[in-house]
Amino acid sequence: MPQYYQCRITQRYHTILPIPQELTRKPHLAATPRDDVLARMIRDRFVASGFDTADLVPYDLLLSRPNHTNPNLITLTNGAGEEVFRSAFKEIPLHEDDEDPEFVHSFNAYTPAGLNPDPGVGVVYANYGRVEDFDELDRLGVNVTGRIVMARYGKIFRGNKIQHAQDRNAVGVILFSDPLDVALEGVTEEAVYPNKGWLPGTGMQRGTTFMGDGDPLTPGWPSTEHAYRVDKEEAGLAQIPCQPIGYNDAKVILEKLRGDQQTPESWVGGLEGVEYNLGPYFKADFSDYRLRLQTHNYELRARSYNVIGTIKGEVEPDRYVFIGNHRDAWGYGGSDPSSGTAQMLETARVLGELMKDGWRPRRSIVFCSWGAEEYGLIGSTEWVEVRAYLFLFFSFILRNKIGGLTMFHVNTDTCASGPILHAPGSPLLWDPIVKIAKMVPGVRNGETVYEEWEEYEKLRNHSTPEMRTLGSGSDYAHFSFYCGIPCLDIWFRRDKNKYDISIYPAYHTGYDTFYNIDHNIDPGFRIHQGCSRIASLTLRYFADSAIIPYSLEKLPTAIKNAFEKVKEKGNGEKLMAIYDKFPLLGEAIDNFTMTTSGFVAKINQMKEDIDPVTLRSLNDQIMKLEQIFIMPAGLPGRPTVRHAIFAPSQFDNYATAGFPGISDLLYGYDSLGTEEMTARQKEIRRHISDLTILVQRASSLLEDFHSI
Amino acid sequence: MPQYYQCRITQRYHTILPIPQELTRKPHLAATPRDDVLARMIRDRFVASGFDTADLVPYDLLLSRPNHTNPNLITLTNGAGEEVFRSAFKEIPLHEDDEDPEFVHSFNAYTPAGLNPDPGVGVVYANYGRVEDFDELDRLGVNVTGRIVMARYGKIFRGNKIQHAQDRNAVGVILFSDPLDVALEGVTEEAVYPNKGWLPGTGMQRGTTFMGDGDPLTPGWPSTEHAYRVDKEEAGLAQIPCQPIGYNDAKVILEKLRGDQQTPESWVGGLEGVEYNLGPYFKADFSDYRLRLQTHNYELRARSYNVIGTIKGEVEPDRYVFIGNHRDAWGYGGSDPSSGTAQMLETARVLGELMKDGWRPRRSIVFCSWGAEEYGLIGSTEWVEVRAYLFLFFSFILRNKIGGLTMFHVNTDTCASGPILHAPGSPLLWDPIVKIAKMVPGVRNGETVYEEWEEYEKLRNHSTPEMRTLGSGSDYAHFSFYCGIPCLDIWFRRDKNKYDISIYPAYHTGYDTFYNIDHNIDPGFRIHQGCSRIASLTLRYFADSAIIPYSLEKLPTAIKNAFEKVKEKGNGEKLMAIYDKFPLLGEAIDNFTMTTSGFVAKINQMKEDIDPVTLRSLNDQIMKLEQIFIMPAGLPGRPTVRHAIFAPSQFDNYATAGFPGISDLLYGYDSLGTEEMTARQKEIRRHISDLTILVQRASSLLEDFHSI
Repeated sequence: MPQYYQCRITQRYHTILPIPQELTRKPHLAATPRDDVLARMIRDRFVASGFDTADLVPYDLLLSRPNHTNPNLITLTNGAGEEVFRSAFKEIPLHEDDEDPEFVHSFNAYTPAGLNPDPGVGVVYANYGRVEDFDELDRLGVNVTGRIVMARYGKIFRGNKIQHAQDRNAVGVILFSDPLDVALEGVTEEAVYPNKGWLPGTGMQRGTTFMGDGDPLTPGWPSTEHAYRVDKEEAGLAQIPCQPIGYNDAKVILEKLRGDQQTPESWVGGLEGVEYNLGPYFKADFSDYRLRLQTHNYELRARSYNVIGTIKGEVEPDRYVFIGNHRDAWGYGGSDPSSGTAQMLETARVLGELMKDGWRPRRSIVFCSWGAEEYGLIGSTEWVEVRAYLFLFFSFILRNKIGGLTMFHVNTDTCASGPILHAPGSPLLWDPIVKIAKMVPGVRNGETVYEEWEEYEKLRNHSTPEMRTLGSGSDYAHFSFYCGIPCLDIWFRRDKNKYDISIYPAYHTGYDTFYNIDHNIDPGFRIHQGCSRIASLTLRYFADSAIIPYSLEKLPTAIKNAFEKVKEKGNGEKLMAIYDKFPLLGEAIDNFTMTTSGFVAKINQMKEDIDPVTLRSLNDQIMKLEQIFIMPAGLPGRPTVRHAIFAPSQFDNYATAGFPGISDLLYGYDSLGTEEMTARQKEIRRHISDLTILVQRASSLLEDFHSI
Repeated sequence: MPQYYQCRITQRYHTILPIPQELTRKPHLAATPRDDVLARMIRDRFVASGFDTADLVPYDLLLSRPNHTNPNLITLTNGAGEEVFRSAFKEIPLHEDDEDPEFVHSFNAYTPAGLNPDPGVGVVYANYGRVEDFDELDRLGVNVTGRIVMARYGKIFRGNKIQHAQDRNAVGVILFSDPLDVALEGVTEEAVYPNKGWLPGTGMQRGTTFMGDGDPLTPGWPSTEHAYRVDKEEAGLAQIPCQPIGYNDAKVILEKLRGDQQTPESWVGGLEGVEYNLGPYFKADFSDYRLRLQTHNYELRARSYNVIGTIKGEVEPDRYVFIGNHRDAWGYGGSDPSSGTAQMLETARVLGELMKDGWRPRRSIVFCSWGAEEYGLIGSTEWVEVRAYLFLFFSFILRNKIGGLTMFHVNTDTCASGPILHAPGSPLLWDPIVKIAKMVPGVRNGETVYEEWEEYEKLRNHSTPEMRTLGSGSDYAHFSFYCGIPCLDIWFRRDKNKYDISIYPAYHTGYDTFYNIDHNIDPGFRIHQGCSRIASLTLRYFADSAIIPYSLEKLPTAIKNAFEKVKEKGNGEKLMAIYDKFPLLGEAIDNFTMTTSGFVAKINQMKEDIDPVTLRSLNDQIMKLEQIFIMPAGLPGRPTVRHAIFAPSQFDNYATAGFPGISDLLYGYDSLGTEEMTARQKEIRRHISDLTILVQRASSLLEDFHSI
């Protein structure tokens, strides 16, 4: 590895600290004046770092907001019609600066304004609101038709919870954060924010419910000025009202539910004194109570900006390395997104310093502050949709999200475990990130970040850090799953050995503040520094290496592993019965493994100074390898998800899967009728055939002279 | 233009002559032993020319054949049940070598074996079998349901004729060549083959009826070993029997048809003494006659080869220039395809000679002898489908088809007009072909081919030769319309000033022989020589020029012209009423025009010796320009036609159109019901929006630093 990859400039506390401080000074919901102020601030920092370009790129989007003067509310009235309960619409300030006139009230984006029509028909507790939870309710004979569904956050994407309730004819949804997921050390004042990172009872998780990516009105194409937009009714938005609440308010409702059926043991959450009865009726003392869910959200067309800054490459200006993070937030966005933006701007500063010393990257580097990510990865998706063709030229995407997000538990926990690097990404990037992690000082007591990482994994009985492919859920999605650009999602995560929960407690609440970062998540900002060091080294590694330093052989290995996994649970036999040529896919993968080894051996034998055209040709092959796996028309039934090997499955948006098309086509297979099954079998044959062709193409790409 | 583009080696009579002689020695239907012999012969010639590779590339395809021992037939029986007429199933030999044991009997590929169930219900004459012809029959009250449709060849693709008849519930189709289209100087012995190029009365036009491209069992993906194949029933093949006959046999049937309705004047063909009555009944003298159409065609899976030969480029081996022609034929294939293959092999020989002198092209050159073109462009389509991803690397496709095909009339005509170059293709190739045509000696009396071309066009009141974009109908289709590779279709055509007929008379008949080329089409083989000179110069021009020599500015000009054309006949107003942002498409085109001019000016200012990486980067931009217009998921409703600007329209496969998606979406628009019209309007808006995005992308591609 070239010497200049050593840290010549050290990311320092005093340069990072002001950024999250400024970013979290005020709420900055997407496309609000404050969001635009921050966009300009970021652009100005790009300019100050000596970038060649720094631009605000606007899009006109369909967004969703709560009515600031007419808050959403849930009420209970008694038999006399008197209101006996009214839910909070924002968090109670628990620390100075927790309050702001522009504070974003609690809501779920893109759910409609509405009121449940017949408050008397009851409320049903539906656990996490998963398909299996609703199936369990069915088995127990608890019907949600015409009723309000009450479900706790966690396990799956909130949009899916509403979709499931809506599919079963519920008339509204109440989502709440359960103490079992957000307050594992108790709900006392000392155990929660601001004293610890755990969530107090008034913390409410906001968030989008949109099931797609990008502007809902332009599915699959960019929201440019002239662009055609579908009608709002065609955008697939939620049809029933929904409101998120904290566990204090949830308790008031839940404790009144009557339990005619036995609640499954695993459905009982962490609210003390609450049986987590299923309802739908209230207990005898409250039998004439009525619950009303009334929301006033509205949709609007608004302008949101991406901020794009570039450092033009010296030798290959038309080859790009990306780093990006989103800017918009529901509340203050202390961890999400300010930590990621902070490290990105620090990385910009460091590269700027290098440029002052005469350095220029070989390839161009692009910095992206995405807008409206929280609504559905909108800024990044629209930007990619404008430029999809250009991705023929891109080599690498890096998204950097600091571990503050999930290292939370470490700092609020009494255990000594520390911040752990987590870097899911394309197998092509697995070796590079390990190399880089070995060069960066640890953020706790370790010599290097890698050492701390390895130590953590050993406790989990892994001999080395486990690398994973990407799930969905952030701005790399369209780069990776639509365009086939290798992406890396770097963050430092919580200690799962201690508390294995879905997400850090303050996520999307009013308590995701600078104070929380500074005192509970990353005192001393060592994680911020570590993350920025990793980012700047990784960018330079990929921007400067003559040969693109992908771990090529990891790709066929990961494909092979995914293939073995897809065959588990009898699916291999099933696929074989459906299509006798299924084993040819395995053969193609084995052949790809050999071809890749041969290609890597060829590269290793090359002399130091390859002639420029040969080098460029070689890099073309390397750069396009993952793009081979893009199916132009998309996976079966999913035009905007085109990565045939590594993409989230259709039925759990947060999870990652290998061969998502096969998983999707096998979903529900056994319960199909004869005619549907015959049709499905044809789809499966066709898809396996397509996959085999793609893998064979990947081999061909790496063969000499491209096997014309 | 560099000096070496002058002809250093002259294509000579004695080197070309043996090729068509050998190719046409025996019938060589696709995937027959003789076809394979020729494939190996071509490969051996590539090897002899010093190529770096020369391979047979096999595909297993669904093909269709007549039953050699049980020929297709049409019979007439009288009231006594006696057979009074039986159609010929092959041509009568009129010259030595017109006969061969393997001679391919008359049939239309992919029409099923069958017999009309109820011979008594009659025969309807349907002119050319176009939609408007059937509409006219409707108006006249002549119903084809349950009957045989009899239509003359010409105007539209034969597959469409059968489709139209089938859609209207006809039970069979008889196609015939009418003297008015194939024997314009009379049907006497002296006026037709072998004495002239016109068709004798027993000449029968064979040909495919498949409406798609490529193997019918793998629509959109390659026919590799493991590939999934649809059921034959899903392949969209013709459902009713069909048989082509000559005009002698056609007369026997047509002259017996009764005319209850007046035949439209323009429907009357060239058969003397025939009224071209519409039927469906026979005249009084023949009222108890019965017509039976009985065919015995069968489908089979068979192996066909492409022959691919390559000359590896010296500087950029991973950039390719292509030349291709098909090899298979229905009869002997004297003009079609032997003339094209002859010039390709002569071009191979000439480049081989240059290589012996030390020349190597800068880029790689690929020679392709496609298999099974006649069945539906199958060899080229499958080959492209395997390698679609690789087209990211290709720069240019050249298909060369010699003018013998359509220069026919010159040599069989008493008029002195000569062979005229015809070179439809991508606007990016319009200037280059003109340059080349000015360097090649004329094939008649002119100084150059260009001079002869210009002279011809002047007679048609064109100040310069008119360049056109591509229609479908040959092997460039998938390269161009699926992949966006600029293609050129070079041939020498008939003198349309004299006889404006669809196709040369012996096309696909048993009289398309070597004797016909040698005596009627190209005595002295000067056209063959001219064509090969053009091919070798064009290949070298594109393979050797440092900057890819596209006529860049012709592309926006042609798009602008297509845009103006699409607005004709009130369509502009209609589109404006449907989508008020329609004019933004025009603005985007104007902007693209300016961007292109700026880009060309930048290139022109560049110094002679550009550094290799900048040069490569520049060529990447140039090479990918046309590919920008590829829509990954295809045009609306047409997944395998993806070129948004220049592709054939859906409703006439032979014609070329600009903005085919708009034409398709406007087709039948006015007669839609309210609901369908609303849906169609949305599709139109979406498509115009997509087109605007594509044109804007094209501008971005040519802007500096790719406007990231």
